Amino acid sequence: MVTNDNHSLQVKALENGTVIDHIPQGVVQRVLSVLGLENCEEQIYMGANLESKKMGRKGIIKVANRFFEENEIDKIGLIAPTATVIEIRNYEIKSKTQVRIPDVVHKIVKCFNPKCITNKESVPTHFYVIDKSDLKLRCHYCEKITGRKNIEYK
Amino acid sequence: MVTNDNHSLQVKALENGTVIDHIPQGVVQRVLSVLGLENCEEQIYMGANLESKKMGRKGIIKVANRFFEENEIDKIGLIAPTATVIEIRNYEIKSKTQVRIPDVVHKIVKCFNPKCITNKESVPTHFYVIDKSDLKLRCHYCEKITGRKNIEYK
Repeated sequence: MVTNDNHSLQVKALENGTVIDHIPQGVVQRVLSVLGLENCEEQIYMGANLESKKMGRKGIIKVANRFFEENEIDKIGLIAPTATVIEIRNYEIKSKTQVRIPDVVHKIVKCFNPKCITNKESVPTHFYVIDKSDLKLRCHYCEKITGRKNIEYK
Repeated sequence: MVTNDNHSLQVKALENGTVIDHIPQGVVQRVLSVLGLENCEEQIYMGANLESKKMGRKGIIKVANRFFEENEIDKIGLIAPTATVIEIRNYEIKSKTQVRIPDVVHKIVKCFNPKCITNKESVPTHFYVIDKSDLKLRCHYCEKITGRKNIEYK
């Protein structure tokens, strides 16, 4: 599937699977992790810090035989708001989705407030996105705001 | 650097950098992590679960403008004993190294013994490799054996 000589590494066409393109610099690993692809057994390719005319630097992920549901695409949107998710079936593009920042964030982010019940007991976090441009999440339980700078992914 | 159509993802030749080929299945992420490449700012390309005539499944890492010292190649050897490290300079193969399991392992592995000083205080671990085929490491401090099944990387 891969030919590797001293000049190039060529990756064969994807028959079925997903390409996640235009991932912002520095978050490819986080996207892999949030989608549970770090230990995935399908063929997977990842590129980071690649040149992009549109973005300067970008990352890309290509995974065989995996397709993502709307809630997974929303997770990508939170971490990589510029990303495009391209579904490939039988070597053809079946769909191309520009991700978006979701209205509600469930489970994947830690609440910034150490006293929040979600940090004391095994209660999954739940946030409302109250500002999409500056990314501010209001906790459903303690109502404290977790901002872009304080976001930690679980 | 990358052209991506619905059929293929092509990666341009590496001018200067390193290719780590024939990484056993399931350890590509660990190799990235132990070499500190997860947050590297150079162009990096990774493939996992790829078909390999020799190995069944394999992983590969390709990183621009990074070269590895002997102690780093030994770290790769511990995690990925089948790997080959190929150094590229000016589009040509400068050297090709078959990694080996090192005689001494410093810092990268946790001691299996919870009472060991390295788990109580901030003392870096240090092991002697006493069995390379079955991978057994004897701790310099507590003399307990950490085996392949119990190895945790730090």
